[in-house]
Amino acid sequence: MKFSERSETLQASPIRKFADTVSAVEAEGVKVIPLNIGQPDIETPADFLEAVRSYDVDVLAYQNSRGMTHTLQTTQLYLHNYGLDFDLNELCITNGASEALSFSVTLTCNPGDYILAMEPYYTSYNSIAQAQGVRILPMTTRAEDGFRVPPQEQWEAMIEQSGVKDRIRAFIISSPANPTGRVYTKEEMDTIVAIVKKYDLWLIADEVYREFNYTDRPFHSFAEEDSIADRVILVDSISKKYSACGARIGSIATHNPTFNERVLRMCQMRLCVSTLDQIGAAAMDNVDDAYVERNRRIYKERRDALRERLNRMEGIIAPEPEGAFYIVVKIPVDNAEDFVNWTLQNVRVNNKTVLMTPAESFYGTPGLGRDELRLSYCVSTDVLMEAMDIFEEALKRYPGTSQD
Amino acid sequence: MKFSERSETLQASPIRKFADTVSAVEAEGVKVIPLNIGQPDIETPADFLEAVRSYDVDVLAYQNSRGMTHTLQTTQLYLHNYGLDFDLNELCITNGASEALSFSVTLTCNPGDYILAMEPYYTSYNSIAQAQGVRILPMTTRAEDGFRVPPQEQWEAMIEQSGVKDRIRAFIISSPANPTGRVYTKEEMDTIVAIVKKYDLWLIADEVYREFNYTDRPFHSFAEEDSIADRVILVDSISKKYSACGARIGSIATHNPTFNERVLRMCQMRLCVSTLDQIGAAAMDNVDDAYVERNRRIYKERRDALRERLNRMEGIIAPEPEGAFYIVVKIPVDNAEDFVNWTLQNVRVNNKTVLMTPAESFYGTPGLGRDELRLSYCVSTDVLMEAMDIFEEALKRYPGTSQD
Repeated sequence: MKFSERSETLQASPIRKFADTVSAVEAEGVKVIPLNIGQPDIETPADFLEAVRSYDVDVLAYQNSRGMTHTLQTTQLYLHNYGLDFDLNELCITNGASEALSFSVTLTCNPGDYILAMEPYYTSYNSIAQAQGVRILPMTTRAEDGFRVPPQEQWEAMIEQSGVKDRIRAFIISSPANPTGRVYTKEEMDTIVAIVKKYDLWLIADEVYREFNYTDRPFHSFAEEDSIADRVILVDSISKKYSACGARIGSIATHNPTFNERVLRMCQMRLCVSTLDQIGAAAMDNVDDAYVERNRRIYKERRDALRERLNRMEGIIAPEPEGAFYIVVKIPVDNAEDFVNWTLQNVRVNNKTVLMTPAESFYGTPGLGRDELRLSYCVSTDVLMEAMDIFEEALKRYPGTSQD
Repeated sequence: MKFSERSETLQASPIRKFADTVSAVEAEGVKVIPLNIGQPDIETPADFLEAVRSYDVDVLAYQNSRGMTHTLQTTQLYLHNYGLDFDLNELCITNGASEALSFSVTLTCNPGDYILAMEPYYTSYNSIAQAQGVRILPMTTRAEDGFRVPPQEQWEAMIEQSGVKDRIRAFIISSPANPTGRVYTKEEMDTIVAIVKKYDLWLIADEVYREFNYTDRPFHSFAEEDSIADRVILVDSISKKYSACGARIGSIATHNPTFNERVLRMCQMRLCVSTLDQIGAAAMDNVDDAYVERNRRIYKERRDALRERLNRMEGIIAPEPEGAFYIVVKIPVDNAEDFVNWTLQNVRVNNKTVLMTPAESFYGTPGLGRDELRLSYCVSTDVLMEAMDIFEEALKRYPGTSQD
């Protein structure tokens, strides 16, 4: 029997691929500080588990494929509070943002088609596309330029020269951006909107980090852009904003009626989303702004402390992340994956070590990002500083080839 | 912007498509008896919600992509008790059997490929395949023959004449079968094994109804067949056996190491399965055989009562289901979907009506199954008898075209 072609190229998650090494290191009694994963350490609102605990039924039953009414209403209200109004039947609850992204690719792309994305991009975009025989067409952005959105002419030149212009179906963007932390300016958003219109593309707007904006500018959603209202697929999740990654609750919102009709069929295909997680998510309408404000303040302090430390290290390029809770760091080694592995196995400070994510698989262009890391700041500032001690020590002692 | 080709053909779930009509009927105060869906009415083991309620964490966090250790161990033990032994790393926990089936299609089929199935088959096989540009190649089985597995020569003739012999990658089967209720004999299984070997196919064995066997023969799993150990993808779910459809917990078990490596990448793509549902599912190692035995007895009584009633109606063909909790019924009307709709809107007995599932979309061959229904028996015998009163009344009064 044969495997499918697409299964040949599925990437191992760079965020999760070191799991076995971590287990081995931990078995030696060494503590591993996790700067690899976007798993918030902030407590989940107590309302979540309280709602679940008081859900008393004899039979844990299937729910509507589109989502439970209260969960949909909570999602609707949440978006409304950002000025984004959707009817209940323009929403659906998904198994995390991951399923929302997978459904979006299924409904918009044929196998062999392409999706535009700015690299570095959230690495799962690769596997989500690959699993469906779809490829990411990357537009490179660079640490040296602060990962800014390239000007429109540069997009047009890239698309025209790509040789696959007619097979580009969608533009996918995370905003605020994972991994770069960019909070896009209105001008940058205008460029993207212009490209989406000019090439008649869907815009898959992954805004799961909406709350994590450390700039003085307000965050703008792509769903505010009336001129592309029928082509925006707004993807969201409660994982980051409510520290609820283990509840697999995401959503899709769109004003495109045909998309809505078809996404319901995808929802029916997998019957429904976890009842208990939906019960908990529905209760998130109790969470007040203070929770979100406090988290933003905490993450901003961590970012500042992290940046301050990185700025003092030599040979490092680390543009300030304006949002989300990651930073991309260009380091003076030629293979960041080897560096991450070596650090994990060899560097100990107070019997602790650190796990980071090599950034290569956040790029679509072969070879790019090999000297970059993504660090998350989902641990306290104290632990973050311990991690930086280890990182600094590792950079000093690393015997592998340095780039210069 | 364009939609994908595959999105054009996605079917609406025939099991869920009457939701709006049902709401309207219920709004009039009429009770709708649900014989459409495989949603057990039996109580979920109390251990499930108890385990969830006592899960006390500050942060509801991501879990391992393959599954939580205790949940994997419970799955391992469950299979072991059926004589099926898998290492922990030969298992993964999925978002219901639905995701397990989707992953299996992704890893084994290219777009344009085919999967063999005996029709009538579980209707979601259509959408799961369609969503990936894959098609079901149906082998017809008939109510008149008790939906038996056709002899090997018939399979070979069908495959050779299909014109797509080289594009068939897998055989998918639900056993015990949804919707026909067949519990396959050893001889029938041998035929399937022979076909799978002869045409070098994967065997996707969907055994979520394993516990629901009303025959005196022991149930045999395709995973017992040593000669195809490397090509069997065993799909399971706690939904039916533990009345826990709202917990989206399924699993994949396989001895094929390459499949296992690749399915882990699919698991990583969507990060993890619901933490709370996994906590509940892990506690299912507390459920004793008495729970399962009692349920089997209850369903068997319902089946017998249902069959007895159906046997007394004229013009009906309803082979005895040996397992699962469905029966396929051939009725003397030319369009069962119209009949279902008409019944829902027009027939009332004691202010109740009944919802049934038209069976056409359980078939791949156009036109087949148009005069068939699938009835589930997930309600008490008393309610089932009320439903049969309504069904009988509907058959008498139906003004639509009868077949003869």
